[in-house]
Amino acid sequence: MRLAILGYGNLGKGIEAAISQNADMELVGVFTRRDPDTVKTLTGAKTYHVDTITSMQDQIDVLMICGGSATDLPKQTPEYAKYFNVVDSFDTHAKIPEHFANVDAAAKSNNHVAMISVGWDPGMFSLNRLYANAILPDGSDYTFWGKGVSQGHSDAIRRVKGVKDGKQYTIPVESALEAVRNGENPELTTRQKHTRECFVVPEEGADLAQIEKEIKEMPNYFSDYDTTVHFITQEELDRDHAGIPHGGFVFRTGKTGLHKENNHVIEYRLKLDSNPEFTASVLVAYARAAFRMQQEGMSGCKTVFDVPPAYLSPLSAEEMRAHLL
Amino acid sequence: MRLAILGYGNLGKGIEAAISQNADMELVGVFTRRDPDTVKTLTGAKTYHVDTITSMQDQIDVLMICGGSATDLPKQTPEYAKYFNVVDSFDTHAKIPEHFANVDAAAKSNNHVAMISVGWDPGMFSLNRLYANAILPDGSDYTFWGKGVSQGHSDAIRRVKGVKDGKQYTIPVESALEAVRNGENPELTTRQKHTRECFVVPEEGADLAQIEKEIKEMPNYFSDYDTTVHFITQEELDRDHAGIPHGGFVFRTGKTGLHKENNHVIEYRLKLDSNPEFTASVLVAYARAAFRMQQEGMSGCKTVFDVPPAYLSPLSAEEMRAHLL
Repeated sequence: MRLAILGYGNLGKGIEAAISQNADMELVGVFTRRDPDTVKTLTGAKTYHVDTITSMQDQIDVLMICGGSATDLPKQTPEYAKYFNVVDSFDTHAKIPEHFANVDAAAKSNNHVAMISVGWDPGMFSLNRLYANAILPDGSDYTFWGKGVSQGHSDAIRRVKGVKDGKQYTIPVESALEAVRNGENPELTTRQKHTRECFVVPEEGADLAQIEKEIKEMPNYFSDYDTTVHFITQEELDRDHAGIPHGGFVFRTGKTGLHKENNHVIEYRLKLDSNPEFTASVLVAYARAAFRMQQEGMSGCKTVFDVPPAYLSPLSAEEMRAHLL
Repeated sequence: MRLAILGYGNLGKGIEAAISQNADMELVGVFTRRDPDTVKTLTGAKTYHVDTITSMQDQIDVLMICGGSATDLPKQTPEYAKYFNVVDSFDTHAKIPEHFANVDAAAKSNNHVAMISVGWDPGMFSLNRLYANAILPDGSDYTFWGKGVSQGHSDAIRRVKGVKDGKQYTIPVESALEAVRNGENPELTTRQKHTRECFVVPEEGADLAQIEKEIKEMPNYFSDYDTTVHFITQEELDRDHAGIPHGGFVFRTGKTGLHKENNHVIEYRLKLDSNPEFTASVLVAYARAAFRMQQEGMSGCKTVFDVPPAYLSPLSAEEMRAHLL
């Protein structure tokens, strides 16, 4: 299976590494909007300018589109689904129906399979919500994120006046997790579910009290949460906060029995050292599925909900039944 | 969707209750090998003798086969897959390939879909092993069971001389769970993973020391485990141990990155008040999938690995993408 990467940021690099862990896959190259000679890949994979990509249609089985959800993917995924089977990680939940429709039309008219919104949320978390809702129709859903770095919230900190650099961690509240896990079925406010912890490098002479106040009162991002602000040096930030960990929990609690007398808890948890590398690993597994589904004559836009799990594995059906069932 | 139940034990009763939680399903009736007039159902569902079942082919969309894996299902599932779409919970792991082949031939030759080995292990645990292995190809799998009642081990206790009644709980070792969850990648012996706790009602005048010795030294069942034996009265057993709770954990821990520098932990946990009712709830969701897959022209034997998740849900594809993705 021959994969190519479009866009060489953290996710693209994660895909390059993930392909090296899958013996049935090879990386054709990395496509970039930059001058390809200036882009050095981790594995020495070839780099190409994105403008040449359509000339390589017959060398690429699946194109991994690694742009951002705000502006890149809404254009790129429908465009490249005309030429390739594609996988993206579109994660703007509210705009998924529109993105699906655009991508579906492009993919169907060219007999390609386009997998959208792959990763862990949307992605593996969505799958767990679907399975658990189908099994326990009478119940409640809970999703918690963290402990992990939120890119959007870290960006918001760095836009505050007097802030040189910074990083934000989203942390689930332990007592809330325990209440859900114990089947107490709590109603939780935003503040009761997560706290936010900020590590901030101030500019020289900046007003620290003012920075802390501005962060804590920032609407949408921080004002609805209990937020802690720590001021540290650039050296400390670089040394202690260079990673991009993340993770979270999906719970469904529900009742069965004629008198709803029995309680059940389904919990799915991820604890990830590297958010982009794990996301990339999910995308690569779904690239395998996309290629197989197209080989079997399917086409159009697909999500994780549409993919038979067996298509994700390099094992044969017999091996899976013998070793994993 | 019109479902019927074959076999009215704990699982059959669980399915009767689960159908009442799903608005798109109705229960046609319960089929039994006993005199149907002597079988009283929980909801007043009609009872029929199993010998009449093939005359009702046009009234049943999916037959839920609720027999045991040892002797019932190897005969029943291939037999009834000739006449109906069927779902079973066959759980003898070593014999799944043989069962699959027998059921597949019967189902295919009559254009039915037969879902085998549905439940939580095999079933939801298998699915989680498959997904996690596809995402993290370089890693380790761990499955823990409990805390819960093991039917097989409880039966084994009751066969010991001098034992009137008894129940056995399988309990995962907390420190082993923590080591796995922390990514320590431990190698665990049987004894290090689970303990076994037995509640035994002795016959009057029985030799308690001898009972305890026989249980603890029983090969396969107890000798490889740290086992605790408590002697209690029948009243205590009936009062405190009437439930059939179970559950467990599936972990995959794995590495990503060019230098395998990042660790990830995927954890799936079930905590179930009623093992048969939860199992039944999974079977009923897969009955929905079996019927839909047959309606779309598919046939043959299927496992949870073959079913696109969307087929399990009563929601439309648009609703799923809007609310669960």
